[in-house]
Amino acid sequence: MIKASVIGGTGYAGQELIRILMRHPEVEIVTVGSRSYAGQKFSDIYGNYENIMNHVCEVADIKELAEKSDVVFLALPHGIASKMVTEEILMQTKIIDLGADFRLKDIDIYEDWYNTEHHNKSLLKEAVYGLCELHRDDIRDARLIANPGCYTTCSILSLAPLVKNDLIDINSIIIDAKSGVTGAGRGMVQTSMYSECNESIKAYKIGEHRHTPEIEQELGLFNGKNFNLLFTPHLVPMNRGILALSYATLTKSIAINELQELYKDFYKDEYFVRLTGDRMPETRWVKGSNYCDIGLKIDTRTNHVVIVGAIDNLIKGAAGQAVQNMNIVFDLDEKTGIDFIADFPI
Amino acid sequence: MIKASVIGGTGYAGQELIRILMRHPEVEIVTVGSRSYAGQKFSDIYGNYENIMNHVCEVADIKELAEKSDVVFLALPHGIASKMVTEEILMQTKIIDLGADFRLKDIDIYEDWYNTEHHNKSLLKEAVYGLCELHRDDIRDARLIANPGCYTTCSILSLAPLVKNDLIDINSIIIDAKSGVTGAGRGMVQTSMYSECNESIKAYKIGEHRHTPEIEQELGLFNGKNFNLLFTPHLVPMNRGILALSYATLTKSIAINELQELYKDFYKDEYFVRLTGDRMPETRWVKGSNYCDIGLKIDTRTNHVVIVGAIDNLIKGAAGQAVQNMNIVFDLDEKTGIDFIADFPI
Amino acid sequence: MIKASVIGGTGYAGQELIRILMRHPEVEIVTVGSRSYAGQKFSDIYGNYENIMNHVCEVADIKELAEKSDVVFLALPHGIASKMVTEEILMQTKIIDLGADFRLKDIDIYEDWYNTEHHNKSLLKEAVYGLCELHRDDIRDARLIANPGCYTTCSILSLAPLVKNDLIDINSIIIDAKSGVTGAGRGMVQTSMYSECNESIKAYKIGEHRHTPEIEQELGLFNGKNFNLLFTPHLVPMNRGILALSYATLTKSIAINELQELYKDFYKDEYFVRLTGDRMPETRWVKGSNYCDIGLKIDTRTNHVVIVGAIDNLIKGAAGQAVQNMNIVFDLDEKTGIDFIADFPI
Amino acid sequence: MIKASVIGGTGYAGQELIRILMRHPEVEIVTVGSRSYAGQKFSDIYGNYENIMNHVCEVADIKELAEKSDVVFLALPHGIASKMVTEEILMQTKIIDLGADFRLKDIDIYEDWYNTEHHNKSLLKEAVYGLCELHRDDIRDARLIANPGCYTTCSILSLAPLVKNDLIDINSIIIDAKSGVTGAGRGMVQTSMYSECNESIKAYKIGEHRHTPEIEQELGLFNGKNFNLLFTPHLVPMNRGILALSYATLTKSIAINELQELYKDFYKDEYFVRLTGDRMPETRWVKGSNYCDIGLKIDTRTNHVVIVGAIDNLIKGAAGQAVQNMNIVFDLDEKTGIDFIADFPI
Repeated sequence: MIKASVIGGTGYAGQELIRILMRHPEVEIVTVGSRSYAGQKFSDIYGNYENIMNHVCEVADIKELAEKSDVVFLALPHGIASKMVTEEILMQTKIIDLGADFRLKDIDIYEDWYNTEHHNKSLLKEAVYGLCELHRDDIRDARLIANPGCYTTCSILSLAPLVKNDLIDINSIIIDAKSGVTGAGRGMVQTSMYSECNESIKAYKIGEHRHTPEIEQELGLFNGKNFNLLFTPHLVPMNRGILALSYATLTKSIAINELQELYKDFYKDEYFVRLTGDRMPETRWVKGSNYCDIGLKIDTRTNHVVIVGAIDNLIKGAAGQAVQNMNIVFDLDEKTGIDFIADFPI
Repeated sequence: MIKASVIGGTGYAGQELIRILMRHPEVEIVTVGSRSYAGQKFSDIYGNYENIMNHVCEVADIKELAEKSDVVFLALPHGIASKMVTEEILMQTKIIDLGADFRLKDIDIYEDWYNTEHHNKSLLKEAVYGLCELHRDDIRDARLIANPGCYTTCSILSLAPLVKNDLIDINSIIIDAKSGVTGAGRGMVQTSMYSECNESIKAYKIGEHRHTPEIEQELGLFNGKNFNLLFTPHLVPMNRGILALSYATLTKSIAINELQELYKDFYKDEYFVRLTGDRMPETRWVKGSNYCDIGLKIDTRTNHVVIVGAIDNLIKGAAGQAVQNMNIVFDLDEKTGIDFIADFPI
Repeated sequence: MIKASVIGGTGYAGQELIRILMRHPEVEIVTVGSRSYAGQKFSDIYGNYENIMNHVCEVADIKELAEKSDVVFLALPHGIASKMVTEEILMQTKIIDLGADFRLKDIDIYEDWYNTEHHNKSLLKEAVYGLCELHRDDIRDARLIANPGCYTTCSILSLAPLVKNDLIDINSIIIDAKSGVTGAGRGMVQTSMYSECNESIKAYKIGEHRHTPEIEQELGLFNGKNFNLLFTPHLVPMNRGILALSYATLTKSIAINELQELYKDFYKDEYFVRLTGDRMPETRWVKGSNYCDIGLKIDTRTNHVVIVGAIDNLIKGAAGQAVQNMNIVFDLDEKTGIDFIADFPI
Repeated sequence: MIKASVIGGTGYAGQELIRILMRHPEVEIVTVGSRSYAGQKFSDIYGNYENIMNHVCEVADIKELAEKSDVVFLALPHGIASKMVTEEILMQTKIIDLGADFRLKDIDIYEDWYNTEHHNKSLLKEAVYGLCELHRDDIRDARLIANPGCYTTCSILSLAPLVKNDLIDINSIIIDAKSGVTGAGRGMVQTSMYSECNESIKAYKIGEHRHTPEIEQELGLFNGKNFNLLFTPHLVPMNRGILALSYATLTKSIAINELQELYKDFYKDEYFVRLTGDRMPETRWVKGSNYCDIGLKIDTRTNHVVIVGAIDNLIKGAAGQAVQNMNIVFDLDEKTGIDFIADFPI
């Protein structure tokens, strides 16, 4: 059994992670760390664990956890993990960080977009970007994995085959993404109150969201170029799910079935990427699952390609992919414990 | 492996059943029957099954299915199952009927409340009412199981300990229940349109809902009396979940902790019934799980006891309990394949 | 023009009040008081007022407001208004208090249920309970009006004709009420976060909600008796609306059409009470309006009457009724400025 | 008093129109036409009209209506109005058509996108496109007004100043629009069922929605060119509201404040267009009102401008604008009867 601990277990991503780990056949949860709820039973915070789990939240000392855990998951606001993780800790345990601290390779870009100093430049190089479908081999041997952001996962998987095959003008990319409210986290802010976001939709941080450079970095790996894209997120009145529409100008004429074949080929070994053919993805078909659904559309009137991607932001966009990374690291079947069929209607 | 078939697999309860059976470690799905979608791939109707399931819906002949299946689940509107099931079929397979046809033992009550003739009086006697927590021993040997209704399951489990212990005036029971919209099924009716039921709540069929006599029948088993209760259902703007508040006048003075102990004792061997103590049940903590959560409150000002019950209407109230029944019949650990932790927030 | 000011204008009830007053043909808004948002433009807090209203929120001194306003509305948490209002102020302006401080006539009951000391026993006697349909004559001459609570308005209007006509056992009343999330106010609490209350329903404060004694007080006026009723509120995932089901045992046999006639007669002069006949009220038909819809059902099986009441909690349950009170006080047509047709689907 | 009739009054747009007309100080409703509900009281179909309106739906003969009405509103599926309206009728009454039949000037484009024959080529020329802010002078003298589509209104108002001032590459326009479910109408289709669209988002008809050529036609008027744009609509789980993000490449460098000034100048006389400055529009601030809110953003990293537009699809996108058109035609103050402040939270 893999001994796993979670630091930051009481946020939405942390809780989803614990739910998955609790039913993972090869995992035993050692410690649930939570500064805000230290001393409280996890099942008192989240009533779904009543009778199921007896863990009490602790103020976790990562050094102690490293000693008694095979893997430690971090689900923390940015700026904390980079202070916590050290060489010493990595000699004792694997770290899978669901936060942003180790995702961006260029420290200037990190400090610019996150408006804070990075505390751990040396480990930044070692950290592997944990988008399983693209970096599986590096993940296998990694000690420190930077689990990708939710918008990021959906956007990169949507665009990777096109960028790799040089079919689009890289400078024309516009991503218009929509997320459910859990994406804003569990922190109390006015804009996340029920009556403030119910029955309304808004765009926010247009061109300024921190997932932008993450997408640019990963797509840039395919063509070696620096480039900028325009990323716009929206808040949608639903609990879960991300739908991202990526628009780009085609540089070559290509038929829709050719394009579909190209994607099929690119993802032929990927269990968690589903190409939906002529039916466009909807978040309801992935919610509660680790799948990323992708649909393709060519608009010949304007010479654009539109890629529709859908994921569950808390699963493939956070906790599910974190466990997928763990499965890779510990050499388990990659879908162990995360092979969910989306529950519907839920 | 248990060979299972489903007739009526494209309604919401049928689909949920298929989702559970697909991941049940001891089950293989033989046939998905659906008259309305015959010839269509199940994954074309429900996009969550993309890449997961290749079954094509068939107009199912129950005789053929009986030959090749160890168990046949029926998820059909009332009045159909009672025509389909015969002695011959029951000699070949087990039947678990999610519909209403075999639930009421008194045929006059059935015909009165359902306003139709019953087609199968003889099998009515044999059928076992499949509320697992109350009829486990009979279920074990049953050939024909009448899976309880959703409101019913929640209401009976809420009230059984009180009635059995003769603590309430049986003629004072009022049940005020609230259900998500999946409870109305997948059929197209104006009142189930998004903009007709979103952002609104209504009561319906006050005192006239067909689950009323089912609750009366089962509670009556504890005290041998005929009695009437008042049952009111509501439609709540959410996909899933039932919350039922049962009110009754206490016949004896009892302290809340005594009452809690009495419930704990009654359900001490029941994995799927959780007593929530001082925290009252909410549907979010059971949604996606097979649990029935129960909370208790005594109002000394008016000498009433209030029992709060919560279930997922499609799981403990339909498909989950159907599989729980199957597990009992086939002598599996009762929680096999249905030991879900409620997913949150979803 | 009536000069009106609002203290506590940035909560949901206060904002709704301002919206109504802004379009009221006989009113001019003088001052918007808000401690939390002092110095901010009202339209920066509530974007719906963009280009419509230039008021800046002020820390309001009620004495100053009294001098320059014909009426001052208070929309404040309990315990504040009773300190603010004095004889001196009432000599200069009319006060309509949307809070709880002046609703309960029995100071012991207030202090018991609100767990705080009352600061203004003398004015408590003078204050008129502002349920327009029942106390219109007193309201006309009042200086200080205690606007009723939301659950209260709906419950009292539902039950008044039955109690007055002595048709029910007063000790058998159970009110099972359901409210949208705006009922919890705009304050930031975990349980009002979108993902915490969306797609779930719960009961809360069973038998302990502070609107209980208010309903008892007002119904008690009809029969002179002290009595207790059981009131249970629920939180429903929708922005607005209250649906209250009142259950009681009939003391006399009465036919449904007789009962309907009795209600029609009781409310024959009431514009804002609608009897819905055989169609039961739903919150969608009153949302955005000042109506209270009432439907009646007799359950002969259990000898119960069920009254279904529906209002918009922020309009008839708060701001709309406050303006209705103002219209009475200033001798305007009672429906001036509040004669809305419920907007649907919204 | 203007005598007004509505044909197709029981759809969502028709009902909203009737609600507005019922409270319009200069209008009297003559006839409500509805084929599907002929003979039924309007208040039996829509419970919000209980006690308010006694009209019974009729199978309307447009000739009769023309004789007794000053204006007839048509709220019908496409293909019907073009058969109904004749020169004879227009000699007797004004027609405001909320449908698509008279919006597109180029009959080939109409027949191509709507896949049907047009029945009234002559009147097509006469019809005035009723986007009040752009065609007020023509509307004033029109006999036949084609009320714009919902997505269309929002998109054209968002982009008009940029196109007119030649600031963007007209061939680079991408509009990513999101609509609430009332946009799909009241017709019963599986995809509009509550549990099918609740808690999910999807894009549909990418590049193929019929509002596309309407936007192209109107924007083309500013620069005389034919061009194509890419329009993508989405279905969002909420009752009402449209949020449209328009993306385009800037052809000149311009500062955000210059751009804001340019929009202010363009819309300086327009009561119903609000520029929201640095705060981006959200549907909640326009829902229930006739406003179109517009926000602007320049992304210098990619040289794009993003325009965020928000309207209520049933008001500014349908019934409200229809009444605005009526007000212009009958020389009333343009905001008469439609000067609503968005109700919030609702």
